[in-house]
Amino acid sequence: MSEPTLLVLSADPPPRLGRLTGRARVRYVDESTLAGQLPSADALLAWDFTSDAVRRAWPGEGPRPRWVHTASAGVDRLLCPELAESDTVVTNARGIFEAPIAEYVAALVLAMAKDLPGTLELQRQRRWHHREGLAVAGSRAVVVGAGPIGRTVARTLRAIGVRTAVVGRTPRDGIHGTRDLDPLLARADWVVCAAPLTDDTRGMFDARRFDLMQPSARFVNVGRGPLVVEKDLAAALEKRWIAGAALDVFEHEPLASDSPLWDVPGLIVSPHMSGDTVGWRDRLGEQFVEMYELWSSGQPLPNVVDKKRGYVPMHDDSPD
Amino acid sequence: MSEPTLLVLSADPPPRLGRLTGRARVRYVDESTLAGQLPSADALLAWDFTSDAVRRAWPGEGPRPRWVHTASAGVDRLLCPELAESDTVVTNARGIFEAPIAEYVAALVLAMAKDLPGTLELQRQRRWHHREGLAVAGSRAVVVGAGPIGRTVARTLRAIGVRTAVVGRTPRDGIHGTRDLDPLLARADWVVCAAPLTDDTRGMFDARRFDLMQPSARFVNVGRGPLVVEKDLAAALEKRWIAGAALDVFEHEPLASDSPLWDVPGLIVSPHMSGDTVGWRDRLGEQFVEMYELWSSGQPLPNVVDKKRGYVPMHDDSPD
Repeated sequence: MSEPTLLVLSADPPPRLGRLTGRARVRYVDESTLAGQLPSADALLAWDFTSDAVRRAWPGEGPRPRWVHTASAGVDRLLCPELAESDTVVTNARGIFEAPIAEYVAALVLAMAKDLPGTLELQRQRRWHHREGLAVAGSRAVVVGAGPIGRTVARTLRAIGVRTAVVGRTPRDGIHGTRDLDPLLARADWVVCAAPLTDDTRGMFDARRFDLMQPSARFVNVGRGPLVVEKDLAAALEKRWIAGAALDVFEHEPLASDSPLWDVPGLIVSPHMSGDTVGWRDRLGEQFVEMYELWSSGQPLPNVVDKKRGYVPMHDDSPD
Repeated sequence: MSEPTLLVLSADPPPRLGRLTGRARVRYVDESTLAGQLPSADALLAWDFTSDAVRRAWPGEGPRPRWVHTASAGVDRLLCPELAESDTVVTNARGIFEAPIAEYVAALVLAMAKDLPGTLELQRQRRWHHREGLAVAGSRAVVVGAGPIGRTVARTLRAIGVRTAVVGRTPRDGIHGTRDLDPLLARADWVVCAAPLTDDTRGMFDARRFDLMQPSARFVNVGRGPLVVEKDLAAALEKRWIAGAALDVFEHEPLASDSPLWDVPGLIVSPHMSGDTVGWRDRLGEQFVEMYELWSSGQPLPNVVDKKRGYVPMHDDSPD
């Protein structure tokens, strides 16, 4: 039996793929060569997960990979109607990003509570100016997104004493449904967006929702940029509808150097790094190799995306 | 029976002391009037805890207050040999600062792990530069100081997955003695100083101890400034013996605007604010009023300082 053909969409060879020698015919492609190679490939590793190339190159009909894996949690850059309707299996990198993102959110919440940005600015000015911090224990958070990232964020926030509600698409044990979102936003000290980007969630954080929040509330987005209407967030901060925000993801990445977001008052801008701790590329490579071994021996794959919903369902998340 | 005379060393009236109306003859004093009033006072509230005035004004012999309370955790600014040898009871503000300081330390640890200072500097330059954070879960911390602040810091660090050892003066259940300190420092990712300032601890973090630490280690001081030899810490950071540090307390406070510490590479300077969350002055005032009620009705006081050791012993901390 000949080896399967594995396309890898990546500028540089990902780590650990050497372990597939003799078990896969690996071909590296870029955005320009992807479309021509797709019909003859058995599997596709979308390593450059920031690229829209797969969506643009995916064949309408005819031969195509039977499996697409993305080295990311979100699959929004990948899915197109043709891929969603095909019998191609799509998997994601569940398991890699949860703990780092939860720590990152805790870092932002604690840093905003203690005004660490203000302290660093005063240090630059060599000014000693005592301020009072906020107590984090006993404050209230809403985490929007009930997948493994949102749940891990909630667990970490609870560990530091934050009373944390999680909102998902449908209510279930311990998870609020979307009808509870607005009332929860109205009394939250911290609003954390860790939702998948789908047609239902795009632009969900808009002027109306920022208006609902408390003037003391702070907003964090570690999901995807288009979940937030950026100009509405900037206006909410400028008008002091809310007290602060941190964005790790943006409508357009990398954020252009002339974007007005860089100096919105009270906004922390970080370069899509919340999930990326030292060794993350190795872990993504190892995860893919393990999944490839399952796939090539005909075993069921973990982390299979529900292509209609646009994310990997949790075991307690029955389709509605 | 006439009301006891209560001296209050404070520029402004502390909150909640109005509740003592009719139960205390309250006299406000400053550094210049303190000495003259001490012989006729029954109790002293050292509200301005940053002042050395009590130590300087304390009478050698003759009448003096039977009780001194300080609105701080540390009593290093207060104690002098004459006070230590007298039968005057000294109490501190145990219970107010533990949770805020623990959150502040967690904020610093997480912010350093995720390079939030670097992110904020890049934001100022409008530069998108992705970096990898460190995983906090599974890293190792040593907390020096086994009092309520050190223990609460340890509990919070453990809650975010840090493997945390606590070092106190004497070993006991779950607490390392000082002979374990150096080996623990040599393998710690985070070294947190939350010790009382005494003759034994002054200058304990010096060139020798920074040299013991890993090049990847980061140091945090939320105890008292003189626990650290500041020039040794600055040199350790400049030579990259350690990767970073954060000081909330200093040998001289407020830190002078021409101090070289403001721009030591990798050092975060904050203005002695780790324990101070919104409402802290109210809580300190309420705590004092409750203690005054106990004292004036002849009941035993909590938070009694062991004046020989220079801190309030824990229940498991028998004198050695």
